[in-house]
This record gives sequence, C-alpha cells and structure tokens, in this order.
Amino acid sequence: MIGLSSYAGVMENLTNSAEEQQHSSPLTNAWSKKEELNKNQQPKGVGGFVLVHAGAGYHSESKAKEYKHVCKRACQRAVDRLRAGALAVEAVAAALVELEDSPFTNAGMGSNLNLSGEIECDASIMEGKSLQYGAVGAISGIKNPVLVANRLLSEAQKGKLSAGRIPPCFLVGRGAHEWAISHGIPPCPSEKMATKFSVSAYKRNKRKMEVAEKMDTGHNQTKKRRLSGENHSGSLDTVGAVVVDLEGNVAAAVSSGGLAMKHPGRVGQAAHYGCGCWAENARNMNPYSTAVSTSGCGEHLIRTMLAQECSAAMQSEDAHQALLEAMQNKFISSPFLASEERVLGGVIVLRCCRCVEAQQSQNIQGILVEFLWSHTTESMCVGYMSAQDSKAKTHISRLPPGTIPGQSLAIEGGVCRLMSVVE
Amino acid sequence: MIGLSSYAGVMENLTNSAEEQQHSSPLTNAWSKKEELNKNQQPKGVGGFVLVHAGAGYHSESKAKEYKHVCKRACQRAVDRLRAGALAVEAVAAALVELEDSPFTNAGMGSNLNLSGEIECDASIMEGKSLQYGAVGAISGIKNPVLVANRLLSEAQKGKLSAGRIPPCFLVGRGAHEWAISHGIPPCPSEKMATKFSVSAYKRNKRKMEVAEKMDTGHNQTKKRRLSGENHSGSLDTVGAVVVDLEGNVAAAVSSGGLAMKHPGRVGQAAHYGCGCWAENARNMNPYSTAVSTSGCGEHLIRTMLAQECSAAMQSEDAHQALLEAMQNKFISSPFLASEERVLGGVIVLRCCRCVEAQQSQNIQGILVEFLWSHTTESMCVGYMSAQDSKAKTHISRLPPGTIPGQSLAIEGGVCRLMSVVE
Repeated sequence: MIGLSSYAGVMENLTNSAEEQQHSSPLTNAWSKKEELNKNQQPKGVGGFVLVHAGAGYHSESKAKEYKHVCKRACQRAVDRLRAGALAVEAVAAALVELEDSPFTNAGMGSNLNLSGEIECDASIMEGKSLQYGAVGAISGIKNPVLVANRLLSEAQKGKLSAGRIPPCFLVGRGAHEWAISHGIPPCPSEKMATKFSVSAYKRNKRKMEVAEKMDTGHNQTKKRRLSGENHSGSLDTVGAVVVDLEGNVAAAVSSGGLAMKHPGRVGQAAHYGCGCWAENARNMNPYSTAVSTSGCGEHLIRTMLAQECSAAMQSEDAHQALLEAMQNKFISSPFLASEERVLGGVIVLRCCRCVEAQQSQNIQGILVEFLWSHTTESMCVGYMSAQDSKAKTHISRLPPGTIPGQSLAIEGGVCRLMSVVE
Repeated sequence: MIGLSSYAGVMENLTNSAEEQQHSSPLTNAWSKKEELNKNQQPKGVGGFVLVHAGAGYHSESKAKEYKHVCKRACQRAVDRLRAGALAVEAVAAALVELEDSPFTNAGMGSNLNLSGEIECDASIMEGKSLQYGAVGAISGIKNPVLVANRLLSEAQKGKLSAGRIPPCFLVGRGAHEWAISHGIPPCPSEKMATKFSVSAYKRNKRKMEVAEKMDTGHNQTKKRRLSGENHSGSLDTVGAVVVDLEGNVAAAVSSGGLAMKHPGRVGQAAHYGCGCWAENARNMNPYSTAVSTSGCGEHLIRTMLAQECSAAMQSEDAHQALLEAMQNKFISSPFLASEERVLGGVIVLRCCRCVEAQQSQNIQGILVEFLWSHTTESMCVGYMSAQDSKAKTHISRLPPGTIPGQSLAIEGGVCRLMSVVE
C-alpha cells in the first residue's frame, strides 16, 4: 500500500497541508497571475528558482518553526545570488551555507557527533552545465563543507595540475581539511561546531547504546527500539538544495553531519557521486534539465543511487508519475534494499525546459520549472522561492495519517514559470 | 575512428595477440573439447570461473612477465577457494589479496605514493547475491585493503549494530584503519608497503613536478608532458577481479593505490559505489548475472560510473556489442568527460546464465560464462581460469597499432561452460 499526499493533475496544483494553507495560497495560482501580468508587461530579467530541504526525518511541531525559518533564509540567500546574476552553482552553494550555519540542521554547525564525539561532515555539489562534481567526506574542522566541495568543483574546471596531474573530485578526512586550508577556507574549531543540542543528543545516544549492549534483549526488540528512536531523533536531517538560474542551468548540492553515533570515517550519501545530489542540463536525448538532492539513511540512498535514479526518471513526460515510480520501484521496493525493514529517505527534485509560449517571442525567454519532493520518512521540511517572489514559501510535508514510515511515501510539488527579456 | 582488436563472432573465438597464440590455443576450442568429454562423463562439481586484471595502463615487455605471473597466481588463489566450495565473494577477495600483495601492482604493497610520500589505498567489493557492498577509501597502514572492504560487507550482512545503528558500507582514512584493527585485521607499517620502485617513482615524479612548476611552459606543453609521462608510468595499474561460483553467484572487487602524487585524502573509483566494481545476480528482468571491475583514471571512471554502466549494458543479447557500445558511448564519448582530451580506463566483465543444454538433464547444472575485457589505455593485463583448468591463461591486451590511447579501444573475450552434477 502506498500512502500518497494529495497531488492533483500534472502539477497544476500544489496542495499544501491544512496547516500551510492558512498562510499560503496554492503555488500555481499565484504564479499564473504573475504570468498574465508578464505577458503584457514584458518583464526584465528574473533570475531563477530555488528549492531547499532541511532533511527527511521527523519534525515535531516545536522543531517545525525553526526548520521553516532556516529554509526561508536559505531560499533568500540563493535568490539574492540569482538576482545578482550568479550561476545556479553559486546560488545553490549560498543556500547550503545558510542551511549548514543553522545549529538546528544536521550539517555544518550542529552536526551529529560520531561514536568518538567528533563532528565529521560530508557534502557534495554538482553543476548541470559542466557536469562537474566536487565532494568531501568525513571532513572535520570546517564550518561549511559545501564550500570545500564547491572549490573542488571549480578547481577541476581549471584543468590539469602541475606535471599534468588530474585534479581530485573527492577528498576525505585530514587530507580534505588540509586541502581546504591551503585553498583559503578558514578552519573552525570542532568545539564551536557542536551545539548544546548535539552534545546532549550524543550523551543520550551513548547511554542508549550502553544499555542496549548490556541488555541481552534479542534481535527483534533491538530493532524495534532502533526504529522508534531513529524516527524521532532528527538524525536524518541532511540538508540540500536544487537551483535553476536565469539561463536555465541547474545545480544541486547536499550536506550532512551523517548518522548520529556513526563510526569515525563513515561516509554517507552526501559525499557519494550519484547518491546525494545530481544535476544535468538538457542535451541531445534529454529534453529536461534536472536537479536532485536527497536526504535520509545514507546507506539506503547509496545502495540505490537515488539522486541519479530520480534525475534519470525525470526525463519521462509526467514528472509526478515518474518520481512516484522511481521512489516506489527504485527505493522502497529496490532489490538492493530487500533485507531492510524500512527504507528511509527523501528527495527534492527540479526539472525545467524552455516554455513553448516564450519561443514565439524572440526576445522573451521563458523557463517552465516543475519541482517536487517525496519522502518515506514521517516528515520532510522544504522551502522554495522564485526570484520573482518577495519571500520564500515553506512546508512540512508529512506522510498521510496511518501509513508506515519506510514503507509508504508522500509526494507533492508545484510549477513555476520564469520569464525574462533577452537583451 | 575506433580501433578494435580482432574479436570473432559472438565470443565463439578468443583471438589472442600473436605473442600469446604461441603459448595458448584459443580458449573456446579448449573448452569445446572438454565439454564433449563432459557430456559423456557427467563430471563432478567444477567450481566456477575467475577473470582478473592487473591494470589498464602501459605494460612494457619487461613488466609484462611479472604482471602475467601475478595474474596467474591470483587466478589460482580464487580457483583454490572455489574448488573448496567457497562463494564467489570469498574467491574474489582471495584473488585480490594476491594482486595486492604483488609489489608490481599499484594496490596494497607497492602502491603509488601520494603528494606527501604516503600510501593511501582504496578498495571495494560487491556480492551479486545479496547486492551488499563494502568499501574503504584513503586507508593507510593496512596490507590488504580489500579484506577491510570485504569485512564491511560481511558485517553489514549481520544486520543492525547495537541500539539499532545502521552498519557502515564505506569508511575512509583513520576511521577505516581503526575499524579494521578493531575487527582483527593486523596493521602493516607504511614503510613496509613502499617498494624500491614506488619510492624511486615518487622521487622522479617529485622532481618532474618541481620542474613543471618552475617552468613557465604554458598549458599545452604541460599537457603533452603529462600524457606521455602518464602512459608510461604504470600509475594506472589498479587491480581487480570478477568471479562466478558453482551456484552461479557473481562477485567483483577492485583495489588501488590511486594516482601517483595524488593529494592526500583523494579517493578514486576503487572506493566509489558503481564506479570501481559491480556485481548483480540474475533476477526478474535481468536474465544474466553480471560482474565488472574497472581500472584507469579514477576521476574518469567515477564521473561515468563505468562499472555500473557496463553491468547494465550486459543485459543486452550480444555481450560484445553491448560492451563496445558502453565503452564508446558511456566512456570515450561521454558528455561527462567532454572536456577531457583522452579518456583512460579499462574494464573486465563477466556475465553468465544457465545453459539450455544442461536444463534437459535434471542432475546436471550448466552455466554459460561469457567474459570480456576492454580498454582505452595502451595495454591491459588480464588472466582467467576455470576451476576445470590446470592453470590460468594470461594476456596483455594492446590497442591496435596506430590508434590513439584515450580515443580508441580494444575489446576481446571468451566463453566458458561450467558443468556440475547436482546431488
């Protein structure tokens, strides 16, 4: 049985939860009105669209407010960059910095502590235009891991190193830290990155582990305890963003402190090519530019290569149906996770193509953006904003009541048209 | 223009190079004879097949002998395990240990030194039956990185850790080393893993880099020097193996010391899911079990996810044509490597399915194994052996004369039938 949040038509409606509807009208209606204005007024350059997430996991009502705030700020940061003419990859990195800087998210500041009580972060970024990619894994002492990943990406674009050495796209551990410092990224003492919340969660988890290891409770009981614990710990709150810029370039990024109490050196999906994020501009056989960022249980997202799978699926005609099938067949029912009781994860997806209407007028460029999110976790917090908007919209997506996390999914989304005058 | 080594029919012939033909008769003929015998004699359990590689790169005549020897020993090790009734995953690990232990290969003992003069290794292993995967990246002080990857795989199969924590599938750096030690894998001092050859290559490369950095030679000249240097340095000699066992289970593994003079913490394809190795047993829509191991320039193999791509291609009817197209379209001409002048890599591929003839007799189980290798580097050293054989066959595959490495490819292979009595 799949539990689906309501999602009408081919994204002609974004149906928010009751909680959200009080604050924001359905997305498409708002944009449709703008579009009519646009047709008469021939608007100037607009600048793109951003969709962010602050993790697929469990968001209590008390946490929800903070998560929405940080999503809002992250969208604003990206839109500020887009309005200043930045490329998608710069805007997506700006959104990630804001998400990492929040002490509430499990990325950068406030990341989960590992088994040794240390913070080790994973992050990656991908640019749809160049198809370049940069990633760091298990990096310590850097406030914004995404900036190291982004720097790896941009350094690789400069071509070979001295004596023709191939520049790295993925660095881990101490080497990654040293590379960052040598490229002007400042170090940050680990104790500054830990928060009251992350330290107390560490102590709580440590006690829980000690109890579990002492008790001879048998396999089943341990499993039960794990599942209830995990869904409420917020430990899956990886962050990410997808962006399309004025020129129709896409980019995606993801950042994570990893699972709470992970083994030192463990690298999750956020630093795995094809698993944490994916971005591909339209070309040849691919009519759509696509960008994806994932969140959830790293090992599940790695073994299903979920970001790349969802990106590939987005070339189908019906984006909603394609994502639904990808999440069902390539994730929940994936043969790669056949031994898992519950498959926990979430994705944000963006795809875009040139608008047909815009093509009739040579000096107006239009981009149709479809954006979706889907998750098998209890909830997922997302935010989105077009450069035309005055502020971001945020939403806590939840599984339909009575459905089981890890076995059911929610899927929602919206559509947005970007118009700009080509000089 | 694609340069193709001769390859006749649907793998009914294995055409070796002139050098090889003096020593070994075409594979299939040898097996065809055995098969006739088998039909009359109803042979006992046979035990499987192994294909190994000691890297896609450049193998001088002087190096060729050593490489062939180590491939032979690696095949023998795997076959010994298969004859003892081991599963594919155990046999493939045994082959890798032999390949890593050779001081001539760039894996384990004798690995390339990084920029700081240290050895940091990558390795991964995948089992087609469970679809489980284990990997280590930038690990130091461990003689056989593949054994750590294999232990991660087998530990993950045991299910959750205490307090329901999800076991890691990928560990890097110091954390990976510590995990290995705590799981009974002995440490090995780094100085013991360096060889006279690797140390002198490091010194030579260091001088080359210093000269390159001092000289203001311009971009083009640097590139030229790099390409000639790289093709003759043997620095791409990652090792790997693919195995099918008596029950038709497949497994694949790969191990590498990484690029010479890489930045500390750099992780290459050998530790990247989908890039270094891949193994999937036949199921539902997939009529073939497939296993792949790659070698070459890590960044090229990562960005094209070459192992997974080749595995997926192997579900087509014609294995040779499918691999040819995958290497051409998904590697040499990949949009992900559009900015690269030369795309350097190689793969070994194995696929198998139940034999039709065997199905007529209920107590004879037959497996048809097709195996191939393909590379864009100047040469690639491979070895293969069936548990029916008394010794392994080895082969240095070379690009056809006059073709350009990184722009052309060689492709060769063979076929083997495994028969066993089912008790």
